[in-house]
Amino acid sequence: MSLAHESCSACQHGAEPASAAERQQYLNELPDWKIEQIDGIDQLVRRFAFADFKGALAFTNRVGALAEAAGHHPSLLTEWGAVTVRWWTHKIGGLHKTDFVMAARTDLEHQPRP
Amino acid sequence: MSLAHESCSACQHGAEPASAAERQQYLNELPDWKIEQIDGIDQLVRRFAFADFKGALAFTNRVGALAEAAGHHPSLLTEWGAVTVRWWTHKIGGLHKTDFVMAARTDLEHQPRP
Repeated sequence: MSLAHESCSACQHGAEPASAAERQQYLNELPDWKIEQIDGIDQLVRRFAFADFKGALAFTNRVGALAEAAGHHPSLLTEWGAVTVRWWTHKIGGLHKTDFVMAARTDLEHQPRP
Repeated sequence: MSLAHESCSACQHGAEPASAAERQQYLNELPDWKIEQIDGIDQLVRRFAFADFKGALAFTNRVGALAEAAGHHPSLLTEWGAVTVRWWTHKIGGLHKTDFVMAARTDLEHQPRP
């Protein structure tokens, strides 16, 4: 089962940060994402390119919809031609498996569906 | 005439950065905005608070619509409970009067209409 299709529910019950080994395993499935530390908090980051502002904003809305559905929310920087998505888990101040799952789902919103 | 209702068209024809005196004059109409320098470029910045992610994303879309209508685009950082809006003019690498006009219009999107 791919990361994109795993449940996010683990985050709701005694969340534990992802271990170093788990991070590496998940990142293997997310080649376009990297981990950046912002204000001491590890965040999973990817910048998506678009042809214009309209395309970027449409993507922001698609990612916003999946965030609302999951009850887990990223930061979304929308600019002309790009959206930068950052996932992390506020209550642990870092990265939970859920963040990697949401990153995988974010990738699906950027690709043409089969 | 308030800043929000002025035309943006000046930006299209030989754009000149706003002078220090003009900036101060415009900022007097924009008490919730400040100028921040990011990567050497002055930007007009305001953070708007919301009750949740949905409210923040709805605001992002309203500001996106006015940006599309004006042909001048900000960066919009959408988070749970907040949107940070940054206006600047790429082709002059700083602040044009248009940015202050757009900031004033952004404020109108945040307030209940009369």
